[in-house]
Parts: sequence; structure tokens; C-alpha cells
Amino acid sequence: MTEQEYDLIVLGAGAVGENVADYATRGGMRTVVVESALVGGECSYWACMPSKALLRPAAVLRAARAVDGARRAVTGGVDAVGAFARRDAIVHHHDDASQTRWLASAGIDLVRGHGVLVGERRVRVEVSDGDPVDLVARHAVAVCTGSEPRIPDTPGLAEANPWTSRDATSATEVPASLAVIGGGVVACELALAYAGLGARVTMLVRGDSVLGGMEPFAAEAVRAGLEEAGVELRTRVEVEEASAESGSTALRFTGGDLLSVERVLVATGRAPRTRDLGLETVGLEPGDWIEVDDTLRVPGSEWLYAVGDVTRRALFTHQGKYQARAAGDVMAARAAGRPVEDGPWGRHVATADHTAVPQVVFTDPEVAAVGLTAEAARAAGRRIRTVDYDLSWLAGATTHADDYRGHARAVIDEERKVLVGATFVGADVAELVQAATIAIVGEVPLARLWHAVPAYPTLSEVWLRFLEEYGRDESA
Amino acid sequence: MTEQEYDLIVLGAGAVGENVADYATRGGMRTVVVESALVGGECSYWACMPSKALLRPAAVLRAARAVDGARRAVTGGVDAVGAFARRDAIVHHHDDASQTRWLASAGIDLVRGHGVLVGERRVRVEVSDGDPVDLVARHAVAVCTGSEPRIPDTPGLAEANPWTSRDATSATEVPASLAVIGGGVVACELALAYAGLGARVTMLVRGDSVLGGMEPFAAEAVRAGLEEAGVELRTRVEVEEASAESGSTALRFTGGDLLSVERVLVATGRAPRTRDLGLETVGLEPGDWIEVDDTLRVPGSEWLYAVGDVTRRALFTHQGKYQARAAGDVMAARAAGRPVEDGPWGRHVATADHTAVPQVVFTDPEVAAVGLTAEAARAAGRRIRTVDYDLSWLAGATTHADDYRGHARAVIDEERKVLVGATFVGADVAELVQAATIAIVGEVPLARLWHAVPAYPTLSEVWLRFLEEYGRDESA
Repeated sequence: MTEQEYDLIVLGAGAVGENVADYATRGGMRTVVVESALVGGECSYWACMPSKALLRPAAVLRAARAVDGARRAVTGGVDAVGAFARRDAIVHHHDDASQTRWLASAGIDLVRGHGVLVGERRVRVEVSDGDPVDLVARHAVAVCTGSEPRIPDTPGLAEANPWTSRDATSATEVPASLAVIGGGVVACELALAYAGLGARVTMLVRGDSVLGGMEPFAAEAVRAGLEEAGVELRTRVEVEEASAESGSTALRFTGGDLLSVERVLVATGRAPRTRDLGLETVGLEPGDWIEVDDTLRVPGSEWLYAVGDVTRRALFTHQGKYQARAAGDVMAARAAGRPVEDGPWGRHVATADHTAVPQVVFTDPEVAAVGLTAEAARAAGRRIRTVDYDLSWLAGATTHADDYRGHARAVIDEERKVLVGATFVGADVAELVQAATIAIVGEVPLARLWHAVPAYPTLSEVWLRFLEEYGRDESA
Repeated sequence: MTEQEYDLIVLGAGAVGENVADYATRGGMRTVVVESALVGGECSYWACMPSKALLRPAAVLRAARAVDGARRAVTGGVDAVGAFARRDAIVHHHDDASQTRWLASAGIDLVRGHGVLVGERRVRVEVSDGDPVDLVARHAVAVCTGSEPRIPDTPGLAEANPWTSRDATSATEVPASLAVIGGGVVACELALAYAGLGARVTMLVRGDSVLGGMEPFAAEAVRAGLEEAGVELRTRVEVEEASAESGSTALRFTGGDLLSVERVLVATGRAPRTRDLGLETVGLEPGDWIEVDDTLRVPGSEWLYAVGDVTRRALFTHQGKYQARAAGDVMAARAAGRPVEDGPWGRHVATADHTAVPQVVFTDPEVAAVGLTAEAARAAGRRIRTVDYDLSWLAGATTHADDYRGHARAVIDEERKVLVGATFVGADVAELVQAATIAIVGEVPLARLWHAVPAYPTLSEVWLRFLEEYGRDESA
């Protein structure tokens, strides 16, 4: 059995692992990535990309129907065959050849198999077609194994063979009826996608509404949009039992109500993929999220890093990649003895994880948010003021769609006179959030933002409205 | 004849005049606005709003046809009757009642009629139904009369009764054939709008291509898009003669070529509306653009201001309104003896006019740009580096449309390590530009922009690509 030595071993070749490896390699580290499934990871094949692909056809038809002069040209609904074919093309038919080519071109080695820590800086990879491969890291090991759907231990549920987001995003047929357990982003997006594809969808939500943690007006708008799309929402319900029947599943929930559906989709949150990584050999608890400092290193360790979902810092592809850039870079800097910039907003820290994590929910309406909600800011003891604006009042909304509906909120830090949070809700608001992210991260004073003129007539004019509502005298 | 005294007289109640009056009034000035046409101005009734309204139906149908799964549901083209009806609603059927109500509610007086300067701080208004009204300003007069289409003195052209942008945006029928003279933004947008509505459109452009002054790749993409939409483009041509015939106009241009069309639209630029304002009574030249300092005051005058198009600083509604906020505020401050903040980026100056004027061209593809082009930056002697990115490579583009095409360029100031210009070209890029405007105006260092994470998968991910192309080592 051979032992191969590298500067860095990366466990997991999702978007996060790829970026850790890329930045570390460019920083001079000889790097190997270990992956048991597809190179490219969850997001490319089973999450963001296919779910957006499935949502888009209904979204563009909705947009066309919302404009007089175009409305009459739309005579049908979503064509599921076309939508699935498009999704298949977007996920490259689950073929990771282009990603593995990219790894090779970037000078990164790949070992296909399941990697397990077997002690400090040591990884053993079980491969399907031969002896295990033993890897040794001269400098660091980065755990980038991500997360997976958490299945509640509801009696009968596992036996009913429910869909997870993976199944829903890779399905090739539309069930006649679908129960979605959960009320978060994944639940809302997939409920809308399948309603658009023609399924009769029922959402079973434990809380009072969907999208807990977001601004309440965003949750309310998405809830209303789901209902308009034909989704039946049952809130404050807990599924107590599931029983598989031939071709269908019966769910019994709070109060004894029964629902029989062709398919059940479980979207009740994520769990870290850390159960079988040998974490116990390095003093960590298998199955737990992995705590790290802002350089993504495990406290108390010189060599162990964790990046992406597995850290629970912010479960988004884009934020994981951001962490990956810092982590790859800092490992290379430390390995080479170069200076480490680990002060706030330094090159080697993921400062934005704490203050400026953007998120877009591709529902109808869309939600695009970054930074603190009003409630979160107050809970954190910040002295804030919120500024609200009805997007339908914008000239840009009037031209965008007949009867445009939308709402936006800015959260202003009253001490520093800067933006600390923003939420936009409405059709096609996804691209509005980057401006807010730059304003927050750049700590651009409100007084200066008055000079950042939005083009007319666009939805971005909401920036002017925010400032006008806030008041110029108060901006300085 | 009565003489009415105000703190401020505003000539012109377009968006700019309204904002000057609003900000001045809120600053404590008793203000009157003089307007001979509709309150709300060119943009609301005859420019931005109706042109976007006419362009939108074709845009949403294009977007739907660009997505497999939606494509088959689109079985027709733009319905001109619906498009015109929608446009009429958006321009409020040319009724300015809501705007005049707003003026009244803001405490601003309105005199309807043609106002003329008759000496220092004095304006005479010719009204249709009575004696002239004489107005005296205790503090200031602001000229906000805007601009109008410039008609070239081509022999026969005036006699052929050509359309200007006003006519094209308020038409109620689609001509079978339309010649558009000009290659700027107005020409491109209206050519595309009428092609979408079913007209056979020919553009006659003096230069090598359309959209001179923008990044060449933007001009080229818009040119190609116009041709794909069926617009015939004739470049390097000069119209030498026009002759009206019954129901059509014959144009003879460079080389003797002839073109006979039902309608001619002249879109060859704008001229200031200053011919008949009595400028000669205050030492200025009638018909000229009015030069002002950054507080929008005429040099050498204590009391005369000009704001908006009439200054030629930046002929955009949004930029005129920006100037109006500074001007209204500074006039009020000066009148009340409050401090004036006229340093760069101060409250009372229109600094962004020089460095960060955003613009969106609603063609196919759209163009959204702000700040300096590469050529303009080099001409200004700036040491810059450009970063280019093909938007079709973005995950967000892949989900947005099949076969998405687009391109973006960032212009980086190499000395200050900040963004000084950006241009985005592609479907639905309009909302991308505000982030660039904030980055430029906020002078956010590149090193900090690495922390402004774009949400995945959106088109805004181009921000990450800009930085990656530029290089992290070079960003500091």
C-alpha cells in the first residue's frame, strides 16, 4: 500500500472543495481532492442549479402574462418535458467530465472514493476498484463535505421512501399530488416549481408561516404567492405518521387530519455530512457541525480546516465559495510563511459571514436579502431605523409589469449611518441585492449614497426612495 | 397687473423642476413653478416612460421564448393594441392632474403659461386666459426647461413632417415602414420598439455603428440585436434630401440611394430649450446650453441656477433629478444662511455628474453602464486596467435563458485600486448597474469588494468574476 504526500488534502469536491483546492494550489500548495460522488457537488447537480432551472419556465411565462401587449401571445402553460430537458442540460446530465478536466487543468489531483480521517493530517480513501489510498498532508486537511437533507424520525416516514430535494430536483415525472414537509427556502422553491409543472401541491409547515428568519413581509408575500400558484398551505402542523400505500403515501398530522398524496418531499433542514469522516480520530464529534475561526481553521488545531455548509456559518454555495477563497489562500500563506491578513475584512477571513450574507429565494415574488433583518438587528442590540418602500410606486415597476407588487426594507444603523440590512420582495428583484451587499460591506455612509444615482426607470430607483424616506437631514 | 413675490421661481415643471421646487420648499423657500405644458415633463409623457412601455411586451415575449419549457406556450407576437393601451395608462393619458395635486400638496404654487426672464430675478408669464403674470424672486430663479429634439436642416425634412421621439412615443398606429435617422439611445430604442410592433424599420446612422460613446462591445451587441429583430441598419450614411409624397416620404442619402417609407423618425440629438426664455436680459445667449458650477448656479450670478438637460451636464432624468436635489437644497441653504456643503461629494453639489452617471439602454440586449469607458478613462490620462467577462459563462445566465449572450467590462483605476467604470450587456442587466454605481461613488477598494459576495446563481456573480480575472494579489 502506497502513501501519497500532499501539502493539502481536501475532503469533498463540491463548489467549496474545488475553490479551496484552487486557491491553495495557486498559492503554491500541492493539493489533492477526495470525492466519492460527482465533482462539482450538490449545488451544480441537485440543488441551486436544477431548482432554478425548474422554476424558470413558469417565471418567464408569468412575466409575459403580466404585460398587456404580450399577454395574448401566451396561450399555454409550462411544458414539463421541455423543462426537464432543460434541467438535464443544465446539470450536464450528471456527468462531471468538464469539472474533472478543470481540476486537472488547475493542477489539482483527484482521488475518487470515500475519504476518512485516520489521525492527524492523515486520510484513508476507500476506493471501489482497489486497495485503499493513504494520503498524508504536510500542511493541512480541509473538510468540505457539505450538508445533506435532515429526515425527521416521524414514524413510517423513512419507509414511505420520501423525496428529498435531490429527488425533487432530478425527477423526470411530475407527481399528480405532492406533499412538501417544511417551510424554508427549499420547501417554498420546490413547492412552486412543482405547482408550475402541474402537480397538486400541499405544504405542511410547522410554524406560523414560511421562510422563518426573513423579514415578515417577505414571508407573507411568498406565502400569498404560493397560494396564488395553487399551493395549499397548512401551517402549524406537525406530521405525526406516514404510511406507504400502493402508489401513494398517507400522512397523518396534527389534529388527526389525513392527507393522501402520490409523493412526499421532505425539506425540513440540513444536517452536516460529518458522520463517517473519522472525526473521532482527531478529537471531534462525528455528526456534529464543525466549529471554525474566521480563517476557517478548527480552534486548537494547526492543520484542520472546515469550509462551507459543514461549518454551519452560512449554508449557501456562494458563501461557502467565499469562505473557500479565504481558506485556500490562508492555508497557502501559512504553509509558505507569508503574512496572514486576519483582521476584520482581511484577505484571509470570512468576515462577511457575520454581517453580509446575501440570499435570493426564487419564488413568486422573489425575495432578495442581505445582512440583518430588523428583528435580528434589534435582538443584537443595534440602534437601528427601518425604511420601507412599496415597490409598486416606482416608475420602473410600472413599466416592468402591469399591477407590479413588491416591497423593500432597508435597515439603517443609526450610530454609524450605514446600511446593515436590506430585503427586496417582488418580481425580478434578484439582481437588486448586490448593490446592498456592496453598500454594507463597503460601509458606504448614507451621505455618500445620495450620490449613487439609480438609473430611471429601473427597480433600483428604490435606493433613492430609501434615502428620501429616511430624510436627507438625518443622513449625515 | 399684479406682481407676485416668491423666494424661488422655477421655470419648467418636468421631473427636474418638480424636484428643485420640492427640495427648496422643504428647505423653507416659498416657491412657484411655471409650466406651459404638462406638469411631470418630457420623461413621464413623451420619453423614458412611454418608450419603455412600448419596448416591454416584446422583451417579455423574447424572455419566454428563450426558455425551454416555456417556449411552446408563446404562440403569437406583440399585440399593438394592447401595447398602446398599456402605454396610454402609463402616461396617464397625458393628464397631469395627479402631478398638479402633488405640487399643491407639497405647498408649491403653479402658474400655467410660458415664463420669460425679464431681468434680474424677474419672470413674466404669458398665460392663455388673461394678463401676463409678473413674478419676482427674492432669492433665486432656476431654469429647468430641459431639451427638445434637434431637427437637422436637411432640405425637405421639415416639410415631410417627420416624427420626433415625442410623436413616436405617443403614436397610436404602427406605420408599415419607418426610417429612423440617428444611432443614439433614442434611435435604437424606438427602432426596436417599432420593429417589435410590426413595422419594417430602417436605421440611417451617420457613424460606423450605433451608440457612439459607449463601450464598443455594447454598441456591437445592440447593432446585432437590432438586425436580429429585423431592423435594417445603414451606417455611414447622411440623409441629403427628403421629399414628402402622398402617404410616404422619400429619403435620398449618401451615394444617391433612395428609401421610401411611410414615416420618418428624427432622433439626431437634443437641443436646449432656451431660445425664448429671455436669457438675453440676464447676459446669456438664447438657444445655448447654460453653464453652471457644481451647485448648479450660473457662474458670476448670485441668483440664477440651471438644472437638468439645459445644463448639458448629463441628459438623463435621473441625473437631472439628482442635480435638482442638490440645487433645491443649496438654494434654500443659501437663502437661509445655513452652511453650504460644496466640497466634492458634499450635500450641495452634483459631483457624480463627473464620475458616475448611470445609463440603461432598453434594447435587446440591454446595456447598463456607469462611469468611464476604457477609452474615456485613457483619454483622461488615467492609468487603468480593464477586466472583461463573458456573461454566458455565469451559472445565473445558464438558468436565466437558454443560449444567454452577454458581456461585461469593469474599468479599474490602477492607482487607487477602485472601480471607475462598468458596462453590462445582455438580457435583463438593467438592475446590475446600481451595484457598480455604489462601488464607484463609495470608492470601495477592490480588496474590500472581495467580501461583497454575489448570491448564487444570479447574473450579479459577474462581480466575483471581475475580481477573479483581476487577481487577488493585484487587488490590494
